[in-house]
Amino acid sequence: MDAKKRSEKIFDISDKKIDAIIIKNNNYPFIDKNFFYFTGLEEGIFEGCAAVLFPEKNDNLIISELEEESAKKSNANLKIFRDEETYIEILKESLSSVKNIGLNFNGIIYKDFINLKKIFSNARFIDVSDSFAKIRLVKDEIEIITIKKACEIADKVMEEIPNILYEGMYEFELAAEIDHLMQKNGANKTAFNTISSFGKNSAEPHYTHGNVKLKKGDFVLCDFGASYKKYNSDITRTFIYGKASEKQKTIHRVVLEAQKIGFDQIKPGAIANEVHNAVKTSIDNTEFKDRFIHSLGHSIGLSVHDGGAGLSIDCKTELEENMIFTVEPGVYLPNYGGVRIEDDILIKKDGIEILTKASRDLIEIQ
Amino acid sequence: MDAKKRSEKIFDISDKKIDAIIIKNNNYPFIDKNFFYFTGLEEGIFEGCAAVLFPEKNDNLIISELEEESAKKSNANLKIFRDEETYIEILKESLSSVKNIGLNFNGIIYKDFINLKKIFSNARFIDVSDSFAKIRLVKDEIEIITIKKACEIADKVMEEIPNILYEGMYEFELAAEIDHLMQKNGANKTAFNTISSFGKNSAEPHYTHGNVKLKKGDFVLCDFGASYKKYNSDITRTFIYGKASEKQKTIHRVVLEAQKIGFDQIKPGAIANEVHNAVKTSIDNTEFKDRFIHSLGHSIGLSVHDGGAGLSIDCKTELEENMIFTVEPGVYLPNYGGVRIEDDILIKKDGIEILTKASRDLIEIQ
Repeated sequence: MDAKKRSEKIFDISDKKIDAIIIKNNNYPFIDKNFFYFTGLEEGIFEGCAAVLFPEKNDNLIISELEEESAKKSNANLKIFRDEETYIEILKESLSSVKNIGLNFNGIIYKDFINLKKIFSNARFIDVSDSFAKIRLVKDEIEIITIKKACEIADKVMEEIPNILYEGMYEFELAAEIDHLMQKNGANKTAFNTISSFGKNSAEPHYTHGNVKLKKGDFVLCDFGASYKKYNSDITRTFIYGKASEKQKTIHRVVLEAQKIGFDQIKPGAIANEVHNAVKTSIDNTEFKDRFIHSLGHSIGLSVHDGGAGLSIDCKTELEENMIFTVEPGVYLPNYGGVRIEDDILIKKDGIEILTKASRDLIEIQ
Repeated sequence: MDAKKRSEKIFDISDKKIDAIIIKNNNYPFIDKNFFYFTGLEEGIFEGCAAVLFPEKNDNLIISELEEESAKKSNANLKIFRDEETYIEILKESLSSVKNIGLNFNGIIYKDFINLKKIFSNARFIDVSDSFAKIRLVKDEIEIITIKKACEIADKVMEEIPNILYEGMYEFELAAEIDHLMQKNGANKTAFNTISSFGKNSAEPHYTHGNVKLKKGDFVLCDFGASYKKYNSDITRTFIYGKASEKQKTIHRVVLEAQKIGFDQIKPGAIANEVHNAVKTSIDNTEFKDRFIHSLGHSIGLSVHDGGAGLSIDCKTELEENMIFTVEPGVYLPNYGGVRIEDDILIKKDGIEILTKASRDLIEIQ
C-alpha cells in the first residue's frame, strides 16, 4: 500500500464532514510520526513542516527549503517555504475553501493549534487522533517488510551479546557495543535508549545503564531495538553471566512459560486486555505473585509505543490480522534482579508469526 | 543553582497573577525538556508525568510508579500515580485553590491541554513559553559544567576521526564509529542523528549518512554531539580525505575566516541577527555569494536547538553573559560539496570561551 492509499483510507474512517487534514510538525522532537506515515518519507526531520491530506486529490507537502531534497521522494505536491510568512501563505492557499479541518489533537503542540485557529478563523477543527491511531494499528505490506528488517537487525545483535561480555565490563560499555552493532548491521539509529542492566539493576524495568561492572552470577538484561527507515523493533533477553542459580533458572522459566501463554492467546478476535490478564494470572499463580508490574506489550511500528492499543489492563481492542505487538512478560524482585523476555509478533489469520528470532532459552555465559 | 532556585526565578519573570505552573509530558518523544530543567533530574523518561511548580513552596512531581526510583533524585515532593484516575486526583489535590495556571503552550500537546481544561474548568491558563525560553537561554553554573563535559566528549571523538577513516568506508559505518566512540567516552547517547557525509553529499546541510563509500579527494563532513546528563554539545569539522585541491582549500579558508568574524562579534550587548548578518556578508563578499544557506547558530543546552534565540536573520535577542551558542558558518556548492565548521561558545563578560577545542585547521588525511 503506498502513501496515497493511506490518506484515502483515513478519510473513509474519519468524520465525513472533514474536508482536509493538516499534520503539523513543531521543532524536534515534537514531530508527528503520522507525517511519515502519510508521506511515505523514510528520511529527514521536517521541523516546522506540514502535510495537508485531501480525500479526493493529491496531498500537499509544505516543506522548508532545507529539506526540499529529502521531500522529493514523496508523491505529494511539494510546496517550499522560506520563512513563517510564506509558510502561512502556502497553507492558506492549500485550504482556501475548506470548512472542516481534521487535526491530530494528540500530535500537535497547543501553540501550533492556536496559530492554525488564527489562520483559519472560520474553520472548525475536528480531532482525528482516534482514526490515526486506528489506521496505524493494522500494518500494510510495506510496513511489515520494514519492521521485519528492523527485527532482523536486532536479532543479529542479540545473538552476538554472549560473545562480547567480559567480567568487569561496564553497563554503559555494553550499551555502546549494542548500539554500534545495530548501526553496523544497517540500523539508521537505535529505536530507543538501550537498556543493558546487570545484577539487581535488572529489577528496575525503566533503568537503562550506568557505571556498574559485570560480575559472575549477574543477570544481564538487554532490551533494545533498531530503527530502520523510521520503523522500529524491540527485543529483550536476559542472560546469566556465569552459572545460573536455581532461583535464576526458576524466574527465567516462569517468564518464558508466561510468554508462551501470551503467544497462544494472541489471534484475530482475542481482546487485548484478556491476553494481558491471562499472562498476569499465570505469573500470579507462581511464587512470583505481583512481581509482573507492567503491561504485557504494546503496538510497535513508526513509534516504539505505537499508540492505539496495548496488551494492557485497560485496553479492550479486538486483535486483528496484521497488527504487530511486543510480548514482554517479566518478573522483578527488588534488590535481587529481574528477567524479561520480549519479542515482536505479527498477528496472522490463525495465530502469530514471531518476528524476533534470537534464542529464548536460558543462556549461561561461562 | 539548584532546581529550586530555577523555579523561583520563573515566577519572578512571568505574569504575576500565576499561582502555579504545570509542566505536562505526553508519551515519548512528546516530553517537555523543561521538566528536567526544573526538577534537575538527569535520567529517566517520565512519560505522562507532570511537574507542578509553586512560587513559594516546594514543587510537586507527579510520577508514574514505573519511574519512582529515578524521580527520588529530585528535591520536590514526590506523588506517585498508578493510573489515569489517581493521576487526576493527585493533580487536583496539588492545585485545589489555584485560579491562574501557567502552561508552556509550546511544550504541551493539545489533547493534554484539553484534559487540563476539563480538570480545572474554573481556572485560567496563561502561556509561560516565552518565560521558559528566556530563563533557559542564560545558563547557570551546573549547566555550564555539564555542557562543557558534553563538549569534551565530542572533542575527543572528533580528534579520533582522522585515524578511523579508510578508503571504501561507508558513511553509515563512520556514523556508527562516531556514536560508539561517544558512548565509550561517557556520552549517555548521541545528541542527534550523526551526520557523516562524503564528497558531494556534504553540500546538503540536512543529509545524515547513507551507503556511500569514501574515496580519495572527498570532503568528509562530520557533525555530531554528545548528550551528557540530558545536556548536549554540537560540533562540526570538514576534513579532506587525501590531498586538498585549491578549491577545497579556498572554501575551507573562507568558512574558517567567517567563523572567526562570528567569534569576534559575539559579546554581551551584541544583537543576535547582526552577528549572523556580519558573517553572511563576509561570505557573500567572496566568490561563494549566497552559498551560506542557513543560520549562523543556535542556543544549545537541554535541547540541541534550545529555542529562545538563534544567531539567525530574524532574531533580535541581545546577547548576554552565560548564553551558549553554536557558531557554524558553511559554504555549500551543489553537486560538488560543502564545508561547515561548528563550535559551541560560552559568552563571557568581555567576549567568548570556545568550549569545543578540536583543531579547526584544514586536515588532509593521507
